[in-house]
Amino acid sequence: MAAARIYLDWNATAPLMGAAREAMLDALSMPGNPSSVHAEGRAARASIEKARREVANLVDAEPAHVTFTASATEAANHVLSPVYRMGKSRVALGRLYVSAIEHPAVRAGGRFSADQVTEVPVTRSGILDVDALAAQLASHDVADGLPLVAVMLVNNETGIIQPIREISATVKKFGGLLVVDAVQAAGRMPLSIADLGADFLILSAHKLGGPKGVGALVSRGETLMPEPLVRGGGQEKGHRAGTENLAAIAGFGAAASRMSKDLVERNAAIAALRDRAEAGMLAAAPETVIYSRGEARVGNTSFFHLPGLKAETGQIAFDLEGVALSAGAACSSGKVGASHVLTAMGEDAATGALRLSIGPTTTETDIDRFVATFEKIAARRNPAGQAA
Amino acid sequence: MAAARIYLDWNATAPLMGAAREAMLDALSMPGNPSSVHAEGRAARASIEKARREVANLVDAEPAHVTFTASATEAANHVLSPVYRMGKSRVALGRLYVSAIEHPAVRAGGRFSADQVTEVPVTRSGILDVDALAAQLASHDVADGLPLVAVMLVNNETGIIQPIREISATVKKFGGLLVVDAVQAAGRMPLSIADLGADFLILSAHKLGGPKGVGALVSRGETLMPEPLVRGGGQEKGHRAGTENLAAIAGFGAAASRMSKDLVERNAAIAALRDRAEAGMLAAAPETVIYSRGEARVGNTSFFHLPGLKAETGQIAFDLEGVALSAGAACSSGKVGASHVLTAMGEDAATGALRLSIGPTTTETDIDRFVATFEKIAARRNPAGQAA
Repeated sequence: MAAARIYLDWNATAPLMGAAREAMLDALSMPGNPSSVHAEGRAARASIEKARREVANLVDAEPAHVTFTASATEAANHVLSPVYRMGKSRVALGRLYVSAIEHPAVRAGGRFSADQVTEVPVTRSGILDVDALAAQLASHDVADGLPLVAVMLVNNETGIIQPIREISATVKKFGGLLVVDAVQAAGRMPLSIADLGADFLILSAHKLGGPKGVGALVSRGETLMPEPLVRGGGQEKGHRAGTENLAAIAGFGAAASRMSKDLVERNAAIAALRDRAEAGMLAAAPETVIYSRGEARVGNTSFFHLPGLKAETGQIAFDLEGVALSAGAACSSGKVGASHVLTAMGEDAATGALRLSIGPTTTETDIDRFVATFEKIAARRNPAGQAA
Repeated sequence: MAAARIYLDWNATAPLMGAAREAMLDALSMPGNPSSVHAEGRAARASIEKARREVANLVDAEPAHVTFTASATEAANHVLSPVYRMGKSRVALGRLYVSAIEHPAVRAGGRFSADQVTEVPVTRSGILDVDALAAQLASHDVADGLPLVAVMLVNNETGIIQPIREISATVKKFGGLLVVDAVQAAGRMPLSIADLGADFLILSAHKLGGPKGVGALVSRGETLMPEPLVRGGGQEKGHRAGTENLAAIAGFGAAASRMSKDLVERNAAIAALRDRAEAGMLAAAPETVIYSRGEARVGNTSFFHLPGLKAETGQIAFDLEGVALSAGAACSSGKVGASHVLTAMGEDAATGALRLSIGPTTTETDIDRFVATFEKIAARRNPAGQAA
């Protein structure tokens, strides 16, 4: 009998946690539309508002400042807008600055046109070049509107944690707004929107054990808000129209609530497993390159390159052995391309790298089976260092 | 013990059907991201493509022409765009024409600015004034781009069926594109995108027994497509970025598949129940006004006004008696406002109307309890015809 598969691709999507599943089942049994005023509608509304408090709590924000969306991608398209509103006044933002290692959802620039977007470089170790950002903001022409800066807190491929407080200080010095993509950070490190110095946070449920199909835009206040992306009914206080995804929102809330608990202990245990995997890889093949290993990383991610193994070949080899890993990010359908993150770090991205990413239900046995599979695949590489 | 509540607000949202719930539970157990290439990812992808075929089949379209969105509202914002693409060419649409009785998601005009939107009047019976549309299109200046016309097939408040083929012929005569909001029609009448003469259809899962949080934009072809609303990864063939809502899409597919079966028989039975409710109301209070009763309507909807009873008061009275009805549409949070549909039909919308809308699990007992409640509430009105 074939051994059970091992899922080590949590940064692509995390398996749904039990608490989220239960909250969803409850919500799926509610017949009402949350906008209806009858008892069925009010019950649905209460479920959404509970989830709003749970999600707010995860990032130390006000529930009133959480806008639910269908995905982090939608939240990015919503907040990356050249037009904001302050009450009834229209406020123009002049230019968007995004780091070179952002997720495609942010790199696409939302509603900014391509010529309104400036890329901020990263250092070889994958950290935003804050001096370069300062120089870019110093030459920003505020006559066109304030600058908007978008930087991810944790990179989806390397797991690197960006120095957001320092970045925020620079952005604030030049009067800009800071959007922080916290998708890969939420649940993996303590988060406070105020402590980060962020004006907006982007969150996704399915990266932290909630369901696919729901994300959130969390704001620091509500004075200056992006022009809505999806217009129509008055849901989400007019910020996002459309009947709310009741079940997914309830699942998001339950997952956020669960991930808020034992956060430090849980992630220390996860980091120990990740370190075990890395030690195992290096023991089996000392030439293995583990990216950003010396930098501050979240504990669940390892991005590595085994010389002589193309990433695409490696991913298929692991898959056939029952181990789900990723070659870069899973953001464009079935496509395995060169990693823009490695390219931005000045690495040779042509052969690519593999990503192991784990979560709360990953076990020592899973890691040991991963290491054994790694040894097997490493041993059958072309000894000349060419792709197998 | 209190009697079970009776839910008669299916046009706001339909209870989740069993087949949809089962499909969702299966999908929630899949760990993978549909964009991942490993086995877990491919299983998730297969689930989405199955649903795409099921939704396409409901409206006699090609699966490749179904783009899943988070809601019908998002689909409307997507398709109502002044910028389209034909391959890599940019095609401008000059003006949007929307009927006066459209859902707020369409009336908001999507990405058209307010001054680019023209309202098309309806007759007193709630049918689009095709002559007025023809006159508007005759004076459309194609130098600014083709005209885009959006008309709902079935009105959410009255249940009226619009003469879409006649409307399509008029739109085509002037070289325009036709968007048909089929949200309240799907599952309630046979649908074929080609027979309707529509270029695009908008669908919502939760109005036909699927979950909240998923809709679709269905196109007749794929030559001329709207500029994406949500940009980022390459999901949905580049038309809509963001990780797909796997469970909701699977639920949508299952509901669409179920609703495609026995469509005529099922809706005849539902219409008989609706007619029973209307006969009961008229017997209890002959002065009851039932809007658009003489027009072609879907069989599940009754929009009525009981003189002497304000809609808001009536809705609360029914709710307290355990019957969930709606006063107009449930599209803006908890707000009960004047019906723009009644206003467009030239009715006095000040006191409003109540909507009963039913579905496949509504029983004769439910209807009889509704009628008994109606009698009770009608009897305690202010006899002078004032609001109770």
